[in-house]
Amino acid sequence: MSFVDLGFARVDTDRKNRRGFPEVIFCAGKTPDEVLQICRVILENQDVVLGTRATREQFSLVQREFKHSKFHERARCITIENDPMPKLSGKIAVICAGTSDLPVAEEAAVTLEIFGNCVERICDVGVAGIHRLLAVREQIESCNAVIVVAGMEGALPSAVAGLTSKPLIAVPTSVGYGASLGGIAALLGMLNSCGSGVTVVNIDNGFGAAYAAATINRLVHLATREPEAQKK
Amino acid sequence: MSFVDLGFARVDTDRKNRRGFPEVIFCAGKTPDEVLQICRVILENQDVVLGTRATREQFSLVQREFKHSKFHERARCITIENDPMPKLSGKIAVICAGTSDLPVAEEAAVTLEIFGNCVERICDVGVAGIHRLLAVREQIESCNAVIVVAGMEGALPSAVAGLTSKPLIAVPTSVGYGASLGGIAALLGMLNSCGSGVTVVNIDNGFGAAYAAATINRLVHLATREPEAQKK
Amino acid sequence: MSFVDLGFARVDTDRKNRRGFPEVIFCAGKTPDEVLQICRVILENQDVVLGTRATREQFSLVQREFKHSKFHERARCITIENDPMPKLSGKIAVICAGTSDLPVAEEAAVTLEIFGNCVERICDVGVAGIHRLLAVREQIESCNAVIVVAGMEGALPSAVAGLTSKPLIAVPTSVGYGASLGGIAALLGMLNSCGSGVTVVNIDNGFGAAYAAATINRLVHLATREPEAQKK
Amino acid sequence: MSFVDLGFARVDTDRKNRRGFPEVIFCAGKTPDEVLQICRVILENQDVVLGTRATREQFSLVQREFKHSKFHERARCITIENDPMPKLSGKIAVICAGTSDLPVAEEAAVTLEIFGNCVERICDVGVAGIHRLLAVREQIESCNAVIVVAGMEGALPSAVAGLTSKPLIAVPTSVGYGASLGGIAALLGMLNSCGSGVTVVNIDNGFGAAYAAATINRLVHLATREPEAQKK
Amino acid sequence: MSFVDLGFARVDTDRKNRRGFPEVIFCAGKTPDEVLQICRVILENQDVVLGTRATREQFSLVQREFKHSKFHERARCITIENDPMPKLSGKIAVICAGTSDLPVAEEAAVTLEIFGNCVERICDVGVAGIHRLLAVREQIESCNAVIVVAGMEGALPSAVAGLTSKPLIAVPTSVGYGASLGGIAALLGMLNSCGSGVTVVNIDNGFGAAYAAATINRLVHLATREPEAQKK
Amino acid sequence: MSFVDLGFARVDTDRKNRRGFPEVIFCAGKTPDEVLQICRVILENQDVVLGTRATREQFSLVQREFKHSKFHERARCITIENDPMPKLSGKIAVICAGTSDLPVAEEAAVTLEIFGNCVERICDVGVAGIHRLLAVREQIESCNAVIVVAGMEGALPSAVAGLTSKPLIAVPTSVGYGASLGGIAALLGMLNSCGSGVTVVNIDNGFGAAYAAATINRLVHLATREPEAQKK
Amino acid sequence: MSFVDLGFARVDTDRKNRRGFPEVIFCAGKTPDEVLQICRVILENQDVVLGTRATREQFSLVQREFKHSKFHERARCITIENDPMPKLSGKIAVICAGTSDLPVAEEAAVTLEIFGNCVERICDVGVAGIHRLLAVREQIESCNAVIVVAGMEGALPSAVAGLTSKPLIAVPTSVGYGASLGGIAALLGMLNSCGSGVTVVNIDNGFGAAYAAATINRLVHLATREPEAQKK
Amino acid sequence: MSFVDLGFARVDTDRKNRRGFPEVIFCAGKTPDEVLQICRVILENQDVVLGTRATREQFSLVQREFKHSKFHERARCITIENDPMPKLSGKIAVICAGTSDLPVAEEAAVTLEIFGNCVERICDVGVAGIHRLLAVREQIESCNAVIVVAGMEGALPSAVAGLTSKPLIAVPTSVGYGASLGGIAALLGMLNSCGSGVTVVNIDNGFGAAYAAATINRLVHLATREPEAQKK
Repeated sequence: MSFVDLGFARVDTDRKNRRGFPEVIFCAGKTPDEVLQICRVILENQDVVLGTRATREQFSLVQREFKHSKFHERARCITIENDPMPKLSGKIAVICAGTSDLPVAEEAAVTLEIFGNCVERICDVGVAGIHRLLAVREQIESCNAVIVVAGMEGALPSAVAGLTSKPLIAVPTSVGYGASLGGIAALLGMLNSCGSGVTVVNIDNGFGAAYAAATINRLVHLATREPEAQKK
Repeated sequence: MSFVDLGFARVDTDRKNRRGFPEVIFCAGKTPDEVLQICRVILENQDVVLGTRATREQFSLVQREFKHSKFHERARCITIENDPMPKLSGKIAVICAGTSDLPVAEEAAVTLEIFGNCVERICDVGVAGIHRLLAVREQIESCNAVIVVAGMEGALPSAVAGLTSKPLIAVPTSVGYGASLGGIAALLGMLNSCGSGVTVVNIDNGFGAAYAAATINRLVHLATREPEAQKK
Repeated sequence: MSFVDLGFARVDTDRKNRRGFPEVIFCAGKTPDEVLQICRVILENQDVVLGTRATREQFSLVQREFKHSKFHERARCITIENDPMPKLSGKIAVICAGTSDLPVAEEAAVTLEIFGNCVERICDVGVAGIHRLLAVREQIESCNAVIVVAGMEGALPSAVAGLTSKPLIAVPTSVGYGASLGGIAALLGMLNSCGSGVTVVNIDNGFGAAYAAATINRLVHLATREPEAQKK
Repeated sequence: MSFVDLGFARVDTDRKNRRGFPEVIFCAGKTPDEVLQICRVILENQDVVLGTRATREQFSLVQREFKHSKFHERARCITIENDPMPKLSGKIAVICAGTSDLPVAEEAAVTLEIFGNCVERICDVGVAGIHRLLAVREQIESCNAVIVVAGMEGALPSAVAGLTSKPLIAVPTSVGYGASLGGIAALLGMLNSCGSGVTVVNIDNGFGAAYAAATINRLVHLATREPEAQKK
Repeated sequence: MSFVDLGFARVDTDRKNRRGFPEVIFCAGKTPDEVLQICRVILENQDVVLGTRATREQFSLVQREFKHSKFHERARCITIENDPMPKLSGKIAVICAGTSDLPVAEEAAVTLEIFGNCVERICDVGVAGIHRLLAVREQIESCNAVIVVAGMEGALPSAVAGLTSKPLIAVPTSVGYGASLGGIAALLGMLNSCGSGVTVVNIDNGFGAAYAAATINRLVHLATREPEAQKK
Repeated sequence: MSFVDLGFARVDTDRKNRRGFPEVIFCAGKTPDEVLQICRVILENQDVVLGTRATREQFSLVQREFKHSKFHERARCITIENDPMPKLSGKIAVICAGTSDLPVAEEAAVTLEIFGNCVERICDVGVAGIHRLLAVREQIESCNAVIVVAGMEGALPSAVAGLTSKPLIAVPTSVGYGASLGGIAALLGMLNSCGSGVTVVNIDNGFGAAYAAATINRLVHLATREPEAQKK
Repeated sequence: MSFVDLGFARVDTDRKNRRGFPEVIFCAGKTPDEVLQICRVILENQDVVLGTRATREQFSLVQREFKHSKFHERARCITIENDPMPKLSGKIAVICAGTSDLPVAEEAAVTLEIFGNCVERICDVGVAGIHRLLAVREQIESCNAVIVVAGMEGALPSAVAGLTSKPLIAVPTSVGYGASLGGIAALLGMLNSCGSGVTVVNIDNGFGAAYAAATINRLVHLATREPEAQKK
Repeated sequence: MSFVDLGFARVDTDRKNRRGFPEVIFCAGKTPDEVLQICRVILENQDVVLGTRATREQFSLVQREFKHSKFHERARCITIENDPMPKLSGKIAVICAGTSDLPVAEEAAVTLEIFGNCVERICDVGVAGIHRLLAVREQIESCNAVIVVAGMEGALPSAVAGLTSKPLIAVPTSVGYGASLGGIAALLGMLNSCGSGVTVVNIDNGFGAAYAAATINRLVHLATREPEAQKK
């Protein structure tokens, strides 16, 4: 197991071997120069880079050196793809309860896509108009995993869980005011979901949900490629 | 405006004039004898008594003097009806998400009934099996107000609100564990409901929700009796 | 049941049928263009639009297309009335404890008015000078529902509840500092109100309280129009 | 300044000199024998002993040695008066919102009385029936300080504060359930009181409120005895 | 979609069709008779029953009718297997940080086993002796999903996540005291895990983690059986 | 009892009769014009005005009409004295733990002075250097009441309480960071003070503490003037 | 690095090599038999065993096999010393604020003693009588480290810190009621201490504080034995 | 014991005698001029000054008078060294979990250095790549004390504690989002650390951890100089 020590950071160049996906840069609290330097080290060892919680200022510096890097405004992500990761069979549904939850859903979608997943985006199907959700039931069930993004009371994952047999990861968002307590209400709601098997990530953590879903999709993908290995 | 001073309590004998319903006894923290004495004062001025959060011990003493008093085990209520209050037209739906929420739902139902309301009890229609809720949609809409009792993530009121045009009062319960925080998760969920117009009462406060629903039903009842007064 | 899918939003065009009032736009976190597009879809199906938590920037874009739209500064609301909703008989009281609670009270009043309700505004009757409240007692009782808006300790709903027989909806506000915890103190106070039947909405949620009150007023209004239907 | 070291406790025998009242025993978490030993040391230096949060078991042991000791059941206090403290001129009002708040109010009353104060007990004047409070307004104003004990939403101190010119000390109680959070709701309510000058003590801390009120009453008492000293 | 209405419960007999696993009984707050009745309805439609948070008293009644039912003491589960569910290929690791976390780990293991999964139990590998964890690294990586159960600071999932490429579900437990806040500290720790892709369930919710892991394992199992379907 | 209704405010012109001091303006959340209008009404009935939590902008407008009004920068207060209130005999100590607590201490001092009290300012005597506090012990004891202002852990009131026989009002401040939780740590510390009789006001509420202290000082002052009345 | 796998526990037999002290048994949540088995494994490798949070029932079983084991009632500890650890030069002060804090202080003292430290016990020197603390100032300074145990407002560590140059570890206790929130108030107070360099452990964690103090004392002890090694 | 009273501050000129290190200026909330004046008083008595939480504006004024003062940008510290404090033998490790924790780690390092300690900086060794930590194990063990700085879940101190025999002080940081609650998650994690003997300071309090570590290092340093004194 190896790493590169930059003084301010020890880049884990062994990450992909151990975990299946390369190290990702959490850009918050880093200077543009620090982000750039970490990009360089990762790209010496991998073909793609993902930076989350990035600012336009960080992107500008990165782009000067890596011309083909992209900034995903709503998702606040930087991506660089020297050579895209291989496409996985199987899709991931990214569902969000309301329009205001889109930035978090987009962070999830961008993460999924750079890791080789196909994404089904389904927006604004909150429980206050349950017929909107029932209309997309088959679309959801056709995916290998489901990410449900919701703020306020965070009730959507429970309703979705009741309609699908696929692994479901709930992402509370900080959308709301007053007693939403910056997303705590949605988080608690999801943790107490009556829908069996709902798992939860941190508030606004679209990246984490995507990472978990990609791990599942990759596992299924490998199983379909090497079914014999799995059967043992 | 008048009251009777018992030393340990000042019974508000004017309550029904001002509020439409007589004073109710919150039995928690009172001795059986104190409950009995308050019953006496209320019955000198009114025909019915309701005691909530009552114990069997308090009931035993009350029953010795008021033979026709009743104890509602699951609802933890004492009721005495010398002369029942007049029946109101219009029904109230009392819906609960799961079997464990029944005690709170029953407190609401007993309160509604002693105040002259007809109750539609609908049990175990949580969002994890949304078809169970859709099956009772018309039954709900036929009522003048809807009380929704739910613990855990408290998602049911949002789903019900999306299906009805009637006033909806949500009651969080302390059913759950861990991050349910004794009902706080359900309470926050309901306060942040994406279903417009959902109002909320304290955790496990079946009585309060019933009182509010009864107030609405009484108002509608009076309107149907005296439509001209309302039209002004 | 139907909806229109705009990609970023699924507008619930069936809302008025199910709930009595058309869908309302929660403008926070939406771009001006998104608000405008939703306005268009709603106005194809309804005669009025209400946007809450709106900014002047969102309004400017909307106004360019809908000349007769209005911006309610203090209430932070956009309204468009192609054809006003029919006036309901019966008034709603909107009471606030202090001058600083006015923005929330105004959000309630604007919501009530666009939904066809008459509003009685009563301002600055906090419990520290209880004679100010006693002076408006009859004015309150003459309404079909009462909204009480208060920050700090949120004591006013308890005092008002003791004086009226009408349904009372309490709105905690984020007015205060320190241990007011952004309105949590007022919220907890109202949830624990000793005034029977007080129901509560989220902090600063003037809209939600108004929606609930409008639902009640509409129910009473319909009862006075069609008393026979209610009597069954 | 001096103290007596018992190993498990250092009894502050100088307390009365510095603070005006002798040391008081907080009995919770102490063995009966420890309580007894501290009683002995205090009585060697003072004429009265007060033990709060006491159990009957602690009292039994104490009484075996100090025959004239008393146990105040509801207040959970032990008192021993070898020679009562001199009576202070001026009364203290102890007001409580509901019957369930009586144990805390009694702890305050017992404390006040052993320190030489006259107590006006006023019970069950909660804001849900404000006429009950208005009826005792003059009785309150005739005192030198006012203690207001309330659970649930803790609104009573604000209402009382608006009616009197005397120092007011609010005591939140743990009476309530659910969102009362063991008295936190009442505590926050009182800290955010719109009634200017309301000061607050810990939940259920009747003793602390009484100590503060006694300090005020003693100061006034001394002022009436030695007005010249004060005028300087 | 169908259900059976028992009055106190609406048993969701369609659950296995929609979700892949039959309905499970959350026994807390139900009477033994209610548990028995629900068992009967489920067994009319399915071959296995799982009851979680069960008491010995509930089990005794169930066992009277279903002789081959089992009670799992530490896991607090009732199981009945008329015909075991088919075994899934692939294993699930259930890791716990300390001995005191065993009841929650066992709830997970019992749930996994009745749903047809093989379980690798790994106990007491907390981060304070990291060599204990490194010793089981390959054992973990050989599974299809990993459940990590930990109380106190909840640090174990982060360390495990860094060592495996498999989906990881973290279960905080209420083991600890003081600032562990009944498991909240562990819950927050896991939600903020620096290990990408860690998902979390409610405190002490071994069942929920197992359900999620079983869903993943079933998906992989189906993929290995029908790889062509997945490749589309 | 009377008031003046300005629409946005009902000024309590009877306040001084009932409470001993005239109404005070809480300027936060009011427009400069609203502050000015309230000033006008108060000055028609009283000789002094105090506005707390005021901005320079509010002051500028007020000063245009009331030339002799003053702005107290650090205390954020506006004062107008047409005719100063009569000086009370007796002093109030205002003690603060650190330099950063000065704004709150100044709010207290300005309030005390406009209400006719003499103030002893004592700054930076935190418990980390207890000799600084012991040096001012007599200065404190010479006052009629003591206000102790402290942030961070809020330990100072306990130490001061142990050294004086005078009523002590503790003011927690929001000075601190991290686990000070915006003053909650100091607030909790003061509420749990082992110093008997410490009473507490809201975080940063220098005004409230001063009001309470002024009430006490006024009471003592009146007692020295009319000792006979008190003796009854 | 090695361990012994008992199935339910992996005993870290390498702990003393790495950390200086052998593994300690946290007995809470373990069966008596599990405690016994772990004792056996530890004693095969070490000469002493410490079990914290132990019950008498656990002790009874342990004592049956290890006759010379001891139970420390107040400290809730089991100790077995086959061969006592070597005495360290240097003392540790264990100070507690009040009598009720003794169990936590004793847990610290028992831990220190089995690890070879001399303990200075100083009890009941709370800040409400600061002269009691000043009297032991030199006794404190003569130690190599200071443990300060306090509940309620947790102010004592700040005061002690101001008087000594030695490392100070603060232990909040759950002593108190109401707003002490089970020790959270004391914990927050200590974390916000104005006394520079105060470090804190979990509520009631006497063991943890003792372990830290023993680590310091051992370091100093080794320095005095091998000063040359340190000087490098 | 002595101090200098500046009116707004009482500078504790006796601090170094009592505590081993001179008084430090907490600059937050002080005006530049106040900082300057305190610097002057300290430098009359000591040779070094440390100001924490300083702004560039405060530094500019200080630098005008003290030309050789330095501003440590990332650490937000002002230092002035007229004559550096004597170097202590022994090093302190300052370890941080991620790049974003650097400002807090730097505050610790600057504090340590001005107090005469040598610092080993080790950055970005979070538990998600545990091999990065194992690589520096001996470097850590060679120090006299270890400071571990981490945000998010705060798991690093537990892992480090398991690998070293030296005193360990954990510093939670406010790095993170959502359920990190501004550092509370990390704080709780560290307080509940399964690593025995971990002590904790306030969120972001690099200074406090450094002060504690310096106290330990000074003690060891003195022990190596005067081993005989310690042996007594």
